[in-house]
Amino acid sequence: MKIIVLKFGGTSVGSIKRIKKVAGIIKSYAKKYNVIVLSSAMSGTTNNLINMSKNISESFSDREYDTLVSAGEQISCSLLAGQLIEKGMKSRSWMAWQIPIVTEGQHKYSRIKVINKVKILKYLKSGGIPIIAGFQGIDKKLNITTIGRGGTDSSAIMFAKFFKADRCIIYTDVEGIYTTDPNKLKTAKKIKNISYEEMLEMASLGSKVMQPHSIQDARLNRINIEVKSSFVNKPGTFITKRKNIINNKIITGISSTDNDAKVTLIGVKDRPGIAASIFKPLSKNSINVDMVVQNISSNGKETDLTFTIKSYDLIKTKKILNNNKNITFKKLIFDKNVSKVSIIGVGMVTTPGVTFRMFQALAEKKINIQVISTSEIKISVLINRSNITKAIKCLHKEFNLE
Amino acid sequence: MKIIVLKFGGTSVGSIKRIKKVAGIIKSYAKKYNVIVLSSAMSGTTNNLINMSKNISESFSDREYDTLVSAGEQISCSLLAGQLIEKGMKSRSWMAWQIPIVTEGQHKYSRIKVINKVKILKYLKSGGIPIIAGFQGIDKKLNITTIGRGGTDSSAIMFAKFFKADRCIIYTDVEGIYTTDPNKLKTAKKIKNISYEEMLEMASLGSKVMQPHSIQDARLNRINIEVKSSFVNKPGTFITKRKNIINNKIITGISSTDNDAKVTLIGVKDRPGIAASIFKPLSKNSINVDMVVQNISSNGKETDLTFTIKSYDLIKTKKILNNNKNITFKKLIFDKNVSKVSIIGVGMVTTPGVTFRMFQALAEKKINIQVISTSEIKISVLINRSNITKAIKCLHKEFNLE
Repeated sequence: MKIIVLKFGGTSVGSIKRIKKVAGIIKSYAKKYNVIVLSSAMSGTTNNLINMSKNISESFSDREYDTLVSAGEQISCSLLAGQLIEKGMKSRSWMAWQIPIVTEGQHKYSRIKVINKVKILKYLKSGGIPIIAGFQGIDKKLNITTIGRGGTDSSAIMFAKFFKADRCIIYTDVEGIYTTDPNKLKTAKKIKNISYEEMLEMASLGSKVMQPHSIQDARLNRINIEVKSSFVNKPGTFITKRKNIINNKIITGISSTDNDAKVTLIGVKDRPGIAASIFKPLSKNSINVDMVVQNISSNGKETDLTFTIKSYDLIKTKKILNNNKNITFKKLIFDKNVSKVSIIGVGMVTTPGVTFRMFQALAEKKINIQVISTSEIKISVLINRSNITKAIKCLHKEFNLE
Repeated sequence: MKIIVLKFGGTSVGSIKRIKKVAGIIKSYAKKYNVIVLSSAMSGTTNNLINMSKNISESFSDREYDTLVSAGEQISCSLLAGQLIEKGMKSRSWMAWQIPIVTEGQHKYSRIKVINKVKILKYLKSGGIPIIAGFQGIDKKLNITTIGRGGTDSSAIMFAKFFKADRCIIYTDVEGIYTTDPNKLKTAKKIKNISYEEMLEMASLGSKVMQPHSIQDARLNRINIEVKSSFVNKPGTFITKRKNIINNKIITGISSTDNDAKVTLIGVKDRPGIAASIFKPLSKNSINVDMVVQNISSNGKETDLTFTIKSYDLIKTKKILNNNKNITFKKLIFDKNVSKVSIIGVGMVTTPGVTFRMFQALAEKKINIQVISTSEIKISVLINRSNITKAIKCLHKEFNLE
């Protein structure tokens, strides 16, 4: 039995017209494969439900939140199954509790622990196409749980894992993963193959097609993914392990962010452990500190410390720093007008001089680099936000991504 | 443990504002009782979902229909439980499968067979207020089922039965049951007490506050019901057994319909079993024949037959009659401009002359009676629809309901 997992996102099932289109896509696979379908809620539904809960309380019960929002997938899956039946196929919707999909962890952020295969396998063998509610599960006490926003990708990947699927196809509203955001650079090209590691960096650094933890799940379980559009019938992007990819490019893609803020503490009294004293209270308050640079103090007594955070965390961050009795500094300055540009590629591991080429390309365009951070397969720089398009354009050209 | 069952209809939980109001009502009972709440979907939700299914197919899968529409109660119940938690109470939503509520019969028209009391009793003992999804159940194979439109009333009554509740209060958007439709007669009065049997006739004959089969369930299980408004804090109408009611009125209420049609077959060739030959094919096609009158033929060979059906069944009925090879008739005529007016009251059992008074009152207003049908506690007449207001008004006065 050759199994394929198809995942459809909210825009792919966003209307009855779209659901009919998706049913056609499913039917085309059903000739060759045993198809397992995971569906998100119709686009808009989940946000409507969340807004209703917020109108009751900003601290709406987590348990009831999960029950509330998971109703969205109940609607989309029953409609999609109904459409397949209408087209003469054997199909039915499956809610998490009917399978069951068992999760662990807290409400709103649960993780799928085990999927009971018995009923679904029996159903597949009978020629049925199961339409499974993504994003949801149940815990041991039969509470409905959800696995976080964008969670249907994770559901699909876990189904691919448990059912040893040949492939997992993520149907969405874009044609695949691009060398950089096509909205920011028209010459951006669709990537044919990308490694999990590169995709993970792309996702973490601002490419919004898939959530980082879904890609991580796929990487850990070696699930071959294809990301493609349910709107146009074109090949998408394959996400797979490095050794499956033959690539002569050093850089695979460029990502950028537009919600970073830079914070600088001037004249921090230097002593061992000062960085911990600054960052621990931020971490405790779930503020994610990204890039950090510390100027070595000339006199050995004072130092300037710069770091970036998400701009929506700025007010909270300033408050925490100003109330922190374990540190002394002269001045706190910040800049919301910054962006992070990153080049990503497994090719850079074996290619010397990539950093130099990046810096030179930016320098030639008179773009000032404020902060730098690197990993094995990516280099990120912080620049003024007004330079973002220029930066992406020149790097895209420099690394032959056109 | 004194248990009370509260049921809230769609308009009662139709917005976040309404849900907040309802939470206040629940709280007021929670001081004195162990409260079990049954909630419908927010008004509009169920119809929206049904319309989506119709956009897929008029013959949308019954199984998927039940899964689809039951999402409505999942939304309203989680929001209501969330609101109670926000107000500091212990509460949670319960879907049918979490209890479970086991049904039998076919999809869309299932009936509650058994409610597992264990978890709910434990939860009540712990001081919790369970918010239970009405209208839904599960079958033995763990499919979601629904119990027909207006089914949350039935759910509430079955909970009252299984938990031996003191009372079942049906909260709705009207203040109770009226002597006649207040939209048609301004002097209509709220009825304080009404017997199951009278209420059953009222409901069957056009009073839309409760579905007949819910009342029948209450009658069979001797559940005391109060129907009242969740919008204004006023006593409603009690529905109970006859002997609980002290009533000096002969007639309790008057109902009327506005979707009847009259069909007359002229010159039907008379023979034994002719009525069966006419009505059996109609019944097979789920056409409900209501009032019937047959003129005895003068020559013993031909007869005229008149009966009423719902006006939306008219086209189908004409087709079936014209294609019926077992009967011969000269002419088929019909009239969509008719209404049925009924007077209902247990008092008429012991009071002679009620029929005469009704007919005389109508005759005085020059209202022609076309067809008559009676039961122990009701008399129905078919009249021209243009006379309906006049008829209700004069009967309301004749039987001292003002």
